[in-house]
This record gives sequence, structure tokens and C-alpha cells, in this order.
Amino acid sequence: MAKITEYSKEELLALKKELETEYDKYVKANLSLDMSRGKPAPTQLDITNGLLASLEEYTTEAGLDARNYGVLDGIPEMKKIFSDLTGIEEKNIIVGGNSSLNLMYDSFTRLFLFGALGSTPWCKLDKVKFLCPAPGYDRHFAICEDLGVEMITVPMLQDGPDMDVVEELAAKDDSIKGIWCVPLYSNPQGICYSDETVKRLASMKTAASDFRIFWDNAYGVHPIFEEVSLLNIFDEAKKSGNEDRIMYFFSTSKITFPGAGVAMMAASDANIKEIKSHMTIQTIGHDKLNQLRHVKYFKTAENVKAHMAKLAEELKPKFSLVLEKLDKELKDTGLANWCSPKGGYFIALDTLDGCAKETVRLAKEAGVVMTGAGATFPYQKDPKDSNIRIAPTYPSVDELSQAIELFCLCVKLAGVNKLLESK
Amino acid sequence: MAKITEYSKEELLALKKELETEYDKYVKANLSLDMSRGKPAPTQLDITNGLLASLEEYTTEAGLDARNYGVLDGIPEMKKIFSDLTGIEEKNIIVGGNSSLNLMYDSFTRLFLFGALGSTPWCKLDKVKFLCPAPGYDRHFAICEDLGVEMITVPMLQDGPDMDVVEELAAKDDSIKGIWCVPLYSNPQGICYSDETVKRLASMKTAASDFRIFWDNAYGVHPIFEEVSLLNIFDEAKKSGNEDRIMYFFSTSKITFPGAGVAMMAASDANIKEIKSHMTIQTIGHDKLNQLRHVKYFKTAENVKAHMAKLAEELKPKFSLVLEKLDKELKDTGLANWCSPKGGYFIALDTLDGCAKETVRLAKEAGVVMTGAGATFPYQKDPKDSNIRIAPTYPSVDELSQAIELFCLCVKLAGVNKLLESK
Repeated sequence: MAKITEYSKEELLALKKELETEYDKYVKANLSLDMSRGKPAPTQLDITNGLLASLEEYTTEAGLDARNYGVLDGIPEMKKIFSDLTGIEEKNIIVGGNSSLNLMYDSFTRLFLFGALGSTPWCKLDKVKFLCPAPGYDRHFAICEDLGVEMITVPMLQDGPDMDVVEELAAKDDSIKGIWCVPLYSNPQGICYSDETVKRLASMKTAASDFRIFWDNAYGVHPIFEEVSLLNIFDEAKKSGNEDRIMYFFSTSKITFPGAGVAMMAASDANIKEIKSHMTIQTIGHDKLNQLRHVKYFKTAENVKAHMAKLAEELKPKFSLVLEKLDKELKDTGLANWCSPKGGYFIALDTLDGCAKETVRLAKEAGVVMTGAGATFPYQKDPKDSNIRIAPTYPSVDELSQAIELFCLCVKLAGVNKLLESK
Repeated sequence: MAKITEYSKEELLALKKELETEYDKYVKANLSLDMSRGKPAPTQLDITNGLLASLEEYTTEAGLDARNYGVLDGIPEMKKIFSDLTGIEEKNIIVGGNSSLNLMYDSFTRLFLFGALGSTPWCKLDKVKFLCPAPGYDRHFAICEDLGVEMITVPMLQDGPDMDVVEELAAKDDSIKGIWCVPLYSNPQGICYSDETVKRLASMKTAASDFRIFWDNAYGVHPIFEEVSLLNIFDEAKKSGNEDRIMYFFSTSKITFPGAGVAMMAASDANIKEIKSHMTIQTIGHDKLNQLRHVKYFKTAENVKAHMAKLAEELKPKFSLVLEKLDKELKDTGLANWCSPKGGYFIALDTLDGCAKETVRLAKEAGVVMTGAGATFPYQKDPKDSNIRIAPTYPSVDELSQAIELFCLCVKLAGVNKLLESK
């Protein structure tokens, strides 16, 4: 295919007409598909329905009645599975409720209300800034916005955030209090942090003594095409005495049920002690019966991984379909770039500059709702207006096939219109 | 029985000797009983074991897949049951996770971080004070302490907090931002707020425009001996345009399982809108499968009430036993006062001034752990050192019988020793 970006005005006009005719057919077909969020499909959730079984036993191995009050930080059996999955010691793990987002939000607000290990509460500071590698996860950015934190966009490279930029900013400005990271199969690009990136994050100098890395390992055991290994950031941080810097998050939201999974966080000894001192005021403990359900369903971390292999088989056809269609329709057109993720939940695509919003608008007009353009950037403002997050997991393969064909058409139509503007 | 407080020194010394001999027997018996918290007994939890059954269906009436993400404020069926139980419209209800304490804490911290409906965030104020009717619930006071809120003790009367004191303080000091209330079968005294108390709380003038009544109706459907009706505080508050003042909390912690129940909060339209605007950043939604379990188990609010009647039958023998023993051992001794609760989870007893700590210490030495003396007051400081919370729900009837006999003995021994000090 010749590069469409090199077409003459006449060629572009001819193509535009062709694309518009095709687009009109979609509009008439009246599709109605929501691809805006990274939700598992019902068929994927069905794989885990064993978790709905009756709970014949409600006592833990230690003989504790999981129906009753108690156990602030999770039952030992659940901690053990999380520990084996993440390589983090049980003593550094707190098991939460059904939402790691909730654990992140609460960890953030705790820093605002109480500071960290003796530092000034962030709510008492004139300015708090956070580093936001972008494209990134919109809900991370939303937490910053909710709390009035100034977000500083850091470019994402193929092996993680641009560490030259991160190091320079973190070292010089003590109002920069931390960074958001999704280190494996990142949302939305599927980027996996290299060992060097992890080492640099763990060891870098920061002007703020209470700098915090929010390490959202949401897809820590979610390979689809290839398992990528991630360096244990706690191990690295300990080497430079920076273990208090790490706030680690993980959950079974995309392992079992998004609505009724089990979340966890992990931190250094000192942080865990401080976090628990406030958490014990906030709650008597999270749902231990649901922890027990997960423990009885999985038994071991190995079984979780075997389960993830099943989920990967469910997801593979969807991701392959999207990648094949993108290849077929857009490769070498010059109108879009994307990379193939090895796992996770998303594929990110860059249109020509200034075409993301229009692409998403066109798709929506024809009945396919994508994640809002800009959502992957702080303040929902993509400076180039080019990044779009594709969430292939929820639709069926048939629906996805239609949706992604339409999407490719919209990328082309928006691109051709943009090219014509300058002709 | 003659009043022990009127004994001569010789009579007291003789009694002391007798009591000490008896006490030594208990020490030798090596009891090991924890009556410190208001936990249901395993036998009480067994009544609700139907909730452990497998969940055959996981879609709501509206066809929503409860396994997946979504529904920030709870499934409609759960809201309906809560609405019917509390007399609050569904639109003013938010269903939470397993802990109403968590909803209270988060509501408190939201006020610190964001203020309320445009007011200054409380974290930006030099001083925040809260009215704390006492004896009261230690975990309420702990929230204030965690956030550095100055607690002002308000005396509890037989129909709720002393409203003359509350009205005067609330009207004159704009740093007083609210009050903690457990309006039915209060923790620890079992006091039920009169209609007049509710009306005065709802209509009183407050110097702070963002004054908040934390209305923890934890025992709203928990009669044991007699059902007491409580005025709907929202209805009353609306009459004076004060509906934004009310933050209402309720849960099934002591209806189903403390560790795996469902909590709710309720507030005015304006508050709900503001709360949801932050809550939607904090979480995508709470565990809907557990909500569905509760809905399928209870079906209606009427069934919840029928269930509570069963729980009352379970609790009645325990409360009766304690009250009978107190009557038998302490009535007319002059050494203790208590009142008989109509429901709830506790019996509060007042020893002679300066005897609560010693009573609890003596009981502990002999193997029975009571709620710490002072716990029912702000800063854990009971000015008279006289109030002790008895939590009769967890032990079996046999254990309770032993424990309460020992407890009465300790009340007497501590009292006699105190009387001897001034002879």
C-alpha cells in the first residue's frame, strides 16, 4: 500500500469519497458497541464462575471465623498467594477490598492528610506535583485532579517512562512528590519496564524526601502473547535504602471478577506500620469471606498462573484480530502507528497529529464508543491529539471485528480530511 | 441488701476479706474470656449461614452483570431494601462495601480534603472541633483523634445527648463542625433518642454552615426486648432546610456477617452529588455480588425484620442473664448504676467514681477482658473513671454467666477498696 500521507490532492479527494460511502453504510447499520473501558467479556468471566460456589467452610487455616470481625490486613492464606505471585514478603502486604483503585486513592489521601513518616501532610503544602508518564491510565490522573495535584507529563518510551526526564525533574523540584507507573503491559500501550528503568526509578535522587512511586502492577500476571519478567522494585529500592519510596498495588480484578475480586497493596515495613495505624481507624477489616472464596478457588499462586493462561487463550483471538485488522487496513498508510502488546488489556494507536478526537467522534457517530480521545493524558489533553486507547476485551469476536473495521475507516477518514486541510 | 456505701470500716474490711477469698478462686480457675468488643457469637452467625450458599444467578433485575465493573452506588435491589428499612429514598442512598465505619471515615476525610458544598476544606482550618456525646462509641472518637479533631464531651441523658449543651456550643463556635450520634440503642448505654432530641438536632442553629451530624444508626433494626421507633431525621431537617447537615450510616454488620455484610450511607441530594463526584474517583464500585447475595437471601425489608426477631431471641437470654446478675449482685449496694437497654449490643455500667479502671484490671487479672475503662469517652479519658461497657453477645451463656459473676465481684472489690481509702 502506498503511503496515503504522500497522496496528491486529487488522490486524497477520490479516497475521501470512497471512505465516506463506506462510512455511510456503517452509520446506516446502526451499530451499538461500547469499547470505552477495559472490561472483561461475560465469556471471560464465565471461566471463573467456580468462585460463585457455596462456601462450605468459613474458618481460616488458623481457625479464625471469617464471618466475624477482625483481621485488618487480610487472612494469611490470601497473603501467601499474593506473596507468591508478586515476590513480596507477606509482612509487607495488606489485603484490601475489591478495588486496588480504592487502595491507591486512600494511599494518596493518607499522604495528603498525614504526610509520610513524619513529613508535612501534602494538604498543608502550597503545591504538590506528580509525574505522569503518558499515555497512561486515566483513573490515575483523575486522582491527581481530584486532589488538585499538578500533573507533569513525562513521555513514555519503549521501555518505560523517559528516565532522563524523570530523574531531572525529581532531583530538582521538591514539590514533585511522586510518579504513577504501570510497569507491566502498561495501560494503554502494553509497555513493559526494562530492568534499567526499574533500577533507575528505585535508585534515583529525589528532592522530596517523601517522594512516592505508585507502582500499579495491575497486569502483573496478565501475559497474552508472551510472558515478560519484571524486576522486583522493592529489592532494587532496598539497595539504595529507598524502599519507603514504593507503594505497590495489585488485584484480582482482571483475574477473577472486576466487581468482586480482591485487591492488595504492599509497602516497606515503616510504611506498612504507618498505613495500618490509620487503616485500623478506617475499618475493622475487609471482606474475609471473599478472600476465603479466592483462596479455596485457587489454592496456590501456580493455579492463578494456570488460570491466567486460560484467560490469555480467551483474549488472544481478540487481540490478534485487532492487530491483524490494523495491519491490513493501516500499515504503511502513514496514518497511524501502534505497537503490539505482549499482554495486558489494551492496544494504543497514534493517529496523525490532530486526528484522535475526530476519529473517536466519527466512530461514535456510527455507533462505536471508544475511550475518549485525550483520556490517556493528564487533564484529558493529548498535546498532539493523536493517542487512542483500544479496549478489545469486552465485545465478542464478531462485534469486535465490525467495530475495528469501522475504527480503521474512521482513522483513515479523519487522516485524509486532515491531509486535505493543508493541500 | 444494705447499701455497702454506708458500711462502717469494720464491715467493709470484713466484706473485703470475703470478696478477696472469692476472687482468688476465680484467679485459680484460670478463665480466658474476651468480652472487649461487640462481636456476634458463632451461634448467632450460624443463623445467617444461608448467605454462604452458591450464587446461581449473577445478574440484577435490570440485567446487569454483577460480576463485572460498574454501579458506583449499589444495585437497585439492595438500595430498595435499605430504603424500606430506613425510610430514606433510594436516590439519597449510596451502598458501600462491608463496613459503615469505612464510609464514616471516608466521609470525614472528604470533609477534610474538600470541605462541603463549597466550604473551606477542614484540613485548611486551624482548629476543627466535634461534639462527642459520651459515653459513646470509641471508634467514632478514634476517627476524630486520627485527624486531630478536638473532641468536646457532651453528657448523655436518658433521651439522647444533653441538647441544651449541644445547642449552646453549636450556636456559638464555628470551629465546632459536627456531632457523633448513635440514635437507637446507643453504644454503650442503649439509649434511644426521643422525638424532641431528633427535632432539636435537626433544627438547631449552628455557627458553622458546614456542621455535620454523623448519624450512625448502627442498631436501627436491632431491638431485643422492645422495638423503639426513631424519628426520620431527614424529614425533620427538611422542615428547617437543614437536610445537608445529615450524614446517615447503616449496615448489615450485625444483621448478617460483621466481616462480609453490606454498608450504606445516606445524605441530601446536594451532598450525594458531591460525595459521588469524589467517590467515582476512589472506586469503580463496591462488591455487587455480595449485595446480590444479600438481596437473594432477604428479598424484602420485612424479611430482614423477621430475621432480626430471630437474632433477638438469640440475644435475649444473654442480656437477661447479665441484667439479672447485676440486679442480684449489685442492686441497692450503692456501688453501681446501669440501665436496661431495649436493644442494641451493650449494657453500660457506672461504678463508684474512680473504680472503673480498677474493676477492669481486676477482671483481666482473673482472665476476663472487658472493654478498656475509659474507652467510651473521648481520648479514652473518663473524667469520673466510672463507666464500663459490657458486651454480652460473644460468649456462650455459660461463659457469660461465669464472666459476669466475676465482673460483679470485681465491681464490689474495687468499690470496697475505694470506700476504705476514705475511712
